[in-house]
Amino acid sequence: MATEKDQPDHPTVNNDHLIKSADSQHPANLIPELCRKFWTLGWVTGTGGGASIRDEDLVYLAPSGVQKELMKPEDIYVLALSQQVDPKKRIYLRSPPSFKPSQCTPLFVAAFTKRNAGCCIHTHSQWAVLVTLLLETVHSDLFEINNIEQIKGFGKGFQKQGNLGYHDTLKIPVIENTPHEEDLTESLEEAMDKYPDTYAVLVRRHGIYVWGETVHKAKTQAERFDRPIFMEGTLLTYSSLDYLFQLAVEMRKLGLPWLSDIS
Amino acid sequence: MATEKDQPDHPTVNNDHLIKSADSQHPANLIPELCRKFWTLGWVTGTGGGASIRDEDLVYLAPSGVQKELMKPEDIYVLALSQQVDPKKRIYLRSPPSFKPSQCTPLFVAAFTKRNAGCCIHTHSQWAVLVTLLLETVHSDLFEINNIEQIKGFGKGFQKQGNLGYHDTLKIPVIENTPHEEDLTESLEEAMDKYPDTYAVLVRRHGIYVWGETVHKAKTQAERFDRPIFMEGTLLTYSSLDYLFQLAVEMRKLGLPWLSDIS
Amino acid sequence: MATEKDQPDHPTVNNDHLIKSADSQHPANLIPELCRKFWTLGWVTGTGGGASIRDEDLVYLAPSGVQKELMKPEDIYVLALSQQVDPKKRIYLRSPPSFKPSQCTPLFVAAFTKRNAGCCIHTHSQWAVLVTLLLETVHSDLFEINNIEQIKGFGKGFQKQGNLGYHDTLKIPVIENTPHEEDLTESLEEAMDKYPDTYAVLVRRHGIYVWGETVHKAKTQAERFDRPIFMEGTLLTYSSLDYLFQLAVEMRKLGLPWLSDIS
Amino acid sequence: MATEKDQPDHPTVNNDHLIKSADSQHPANLIPELCRKFWTLGWVTGTGGGASIRDEDLVYLAPSGVQKELMKPEDIYVLALSQQVDPKKRIYLRSPPSFKPSQCTPLFVAAFTKRNAGCCIHTHSQWAVLVTLLLETVHSDLFEINNIEQIKGFGKGFQKQGNLGYHDTLKIPVIENTPHEEDLTESLEEAMDKYPDTYAVLVRRHGIYVWGETVHKAKTQAERFDRPIFMEGTLLTYSSLDYLFQLAVEMRKLGLPWLSDIS
Repeated sequence: MATEKDQPDHPTVNNDHLIKSADSQHPANLIPELCRKFWTLGWVTGTGGGASIRDEDLVYLAPSGVQKELMKPEDIYVLALSQQVDPKKRIYLRSPPSFKPSQCTPLFVAAFTKRNAGCCIHTHSQWAVLVTLLLETVHSDLFEINNIEQIKGFGKGFQKQGNLGYHDTLKIPVIENTPHEEDLTESLEEAMDKYPDTYAVLVRRHGIYVWGETVHKAKTQAERFDRPIFMEGTLLTYSSLDYLFQLAVEMRKLGLPWLSDIS
Repeated sequence: MATEKDQPDHPTVNNDHLIKSADSQHPANLIPELCRKFWTLGWVTGTGGGASIRDEDLVYLAPSGVQKELMKPEDIYVLALSQQVDPKKRIYLRSPPSFKPSQCTPLFVAAFTKRNAGCCIHTHSQWAVLVTLLLETVHSDLFEINNIEQIKGFGKGFQKQGNLGYHDTLKIPVIENTPHEEDLTESLEEAMDKYPDTYAVLVRRHGIYVWGETVHKAKTQAERFDRPIFMEGTLLTYSSLDYLFQLAVEMRKLGLPWLSDIS
Repeated sequence: MATEKDQPDHPTVNNDHLIKSADSQHPANLIPELCRKFWTLGWVTGTGGGASIRDEDLVYLAPSGVQKELMKPEDIYVLALSQQVDPKKRIYLRSPPSFKPSQCTPLFVAAFTKRNAGCCIHTHSQWAVLVTLLLETVHSDLFEINNIEQIKGFGKGFQKQGNLGYHDTLKIPVIENTPHEEDLTESLEEAMDKYPDTYAVLVRRHGIYVWGETVHKAKTQAERFDRPIFMEGTLLTYSSLDYLFQLAVEMRKLGLPWLSDIS
Repeated sequence: MATEKDQPDHPTVNNDHLIKSADSQHPANLIPELCRKFWTLGWVTGTGGGASIRDEDLVYLAPSGVQKELMKPEDIYVLALSQQVDPKKRIYLRSPPSFKPSQCTPLFVAAFTKRNAGCCIHTHSQWAVLVTLLLETVHSDLFEINNIEQIKGFGKGFQKQGNLGYHDTLKIPVIENTPHEEDLTESLEEAMDKYPDTYAVLVRRHGIYVWGETVHKAKTQAERFDRPIFMEGTLLTYSSLDYLFQLAVEMRKLGLPWLSDIS
């Protein structure tokens, strides 16, 4: 429904070379592939959710209001982080002829600039939403779970080596939703400051933002991989988190507590 | 089981050119694709549910009693809205040699004529059915939910600009089921009159009808898209609704209310 | 695990021509396709469940102990109904070199001979098993549900015209499970006699048998279809039933009764 | 996240011929196929879980930290059972250039050496985890269920002929999780000793290990199959177990006991 309204002014010079590449690993090709995978796995529904990839200074973004499994490289927005002087006045190097920029843009940008993320994804996962609703009943803004093996799938945190241990408590902050998604930016950044090691922020009654660090690697090591590590890391974090949220909801249905005292 | 009974009389002149097109975006090609997608996503089971697309005066309809993931363009019915003088005596421009017309036909026609819809889909979604059963226990004929982000996926209503806000309450009327599907037409139209801005009507113990407006567009703008907007709009509305119904059922299992007082 | 044990004696003459056909609609090609579809839809798990198709006097059967999504035409058994004089001494026209005959064989044969079925499928559907367990707590051997639209997907019964109505109560008998599947035959036949119009029998703590009538059709009418009606009818009945069982389990979780008094 | 850390020293001679084969049934080709299937069926999420196949003395292993649906033959580790003198100092014949060995390795090796397994798989199945959590509330380290047909899908046990009967109680031991997966080895071996006939061991708050025996077969019999029996057996056991765990969780939600007294 949102696809045909409020079209922003588009520059006539559109820099389409930024999103045209025969390389399947180019961000403009990866984002549609990522979105199709999300759709297939049930991680996004309709237009809810999005994805963004950063390659050095350039940020590639899925547009708003596009059905996620039908996205194409031509639908991608591109901006340069270094050119963003005023968050209220976003400058795009490349815009698709249809669609609008995603309201998630400032949140993705926060992950890129404050956490050196290389990839950030946002979904309206029902398990995530249910977890935030359950926490709301006890006025909590922190999801905590421990003593579940899958916790070992998470890194210890920002610029830290190694992963969480089995007995460690995984903590994901929850911020309150706002009528306009871009207004989440401030509280998202506050949550990042308060929980500097988190890879994700839950948004109450809304969904989740998950990101993965970009890892600087020597060229020889990079050649060992045929797909960007930052994207894999984000996906793995997301799928491990969604596993935990689903498990947490089922535990609640069965009367099982999320935190336990085992050592 | 219904596939071989009660064959209506078919005209000998069958206008097969109306359903034969090499264009993948032709309604007769889109409907089978749509139905396969429904089946894959679990939105329809067996023969339950259907879909219809309107292109100006022509309406394309899936038949009754066909297994949805096996439908072919040759199975499609076509009628002209302008030729329907008597709702009891439907006139088809084109009928498939097997199958019967869908009982949903008058309901699809209501969406096309009363709401200028371009696409209407009907499913027996279990989440929708469970929501109507839960509402029945409190004698309610209105599904209401607010303060959930996904609500922003819905337009404000018929011929209105913009989408619902996060704090707005989404309202979907529920009508009582009848033994014969065509007898729903009157109460569906009443619900459309009472809730002129709704994009959907729930049918108690039965399922849901969801439609999307046809948007008149200049030819140049239309060329920006490679798939009909009216179909996308309907699909996005449907998937957002089914998301909310599933969430609502899970909320009920966890003792969480559908309406809350947040601002 | 059962794949390599208890190989029965196989005739040296193996009539492989019975299962080799370039026609995709030949039963030996349809059964593997059917079993793959079951696997994909989650209707069978591991080796549980099976399918059989009858073409006049010939019966085609999936073997025991084969992983359902990997079955091939060469794995199919064939028998002639007219040659079965002693149910304890099954005579096969064609046997696969590996595998054993399915223990479901006498139950499929009962559907073919007592109900003129053209296709019979058996699954260990978890929804079906849960429904039988819920009925066991009230010592019931009859699943009953009414006032749900999907009920209209079922024919009125054996050799009857037309389908059930919305207010009709769908009744599916439940028989008690036995240690050896072939020992279910007698009680399955009793259930068929007691409920002559049923298209299915639930087996407590086990699963369900569902069949569809073979419909005699003039050749010209048959040519209108490109797939056997008896198979479609069985599949549609099965998917409508599994929908109702899943709905019934969810209704129970939400405290909603299966029978209601609406008119 | 674990993909780029703690790279072990790799031998310069890498024996890539061990994982390069045009035969689709070669273990190095089967393991990636297996892992893709696990991902598709929802049996593994992110990097959780793994698979290993033994061919005589050679063991093929999926690496740690790889996203399961993207694995390739070049990612596979190979070791010779006969060369493993010190479990703390694993000797690999072949290592992938990236990735680390799986922490599951000693557990897979235990299944191969103590139970003559030909294939062993490990998943973080949510149903398995929920079952271990439910058992924890009653301080139990044994999952028991009886009088469910699917139980007949399990062999009687190690080097025994035939399968369990319908009235038999299936017993799967539960071991306590440890911070380091390799530290599970001792308790896994103890569980194998205490329950010599089990094909699986549950790990509390973690997941499950499932294996299948290698069956020695004469060459003529082997040629009857076009895929390794040991892999099929393990998969069938796994899918039957996961079916039972899911059923057990749903039974608990509905207040139905896992053990009953029927005969």
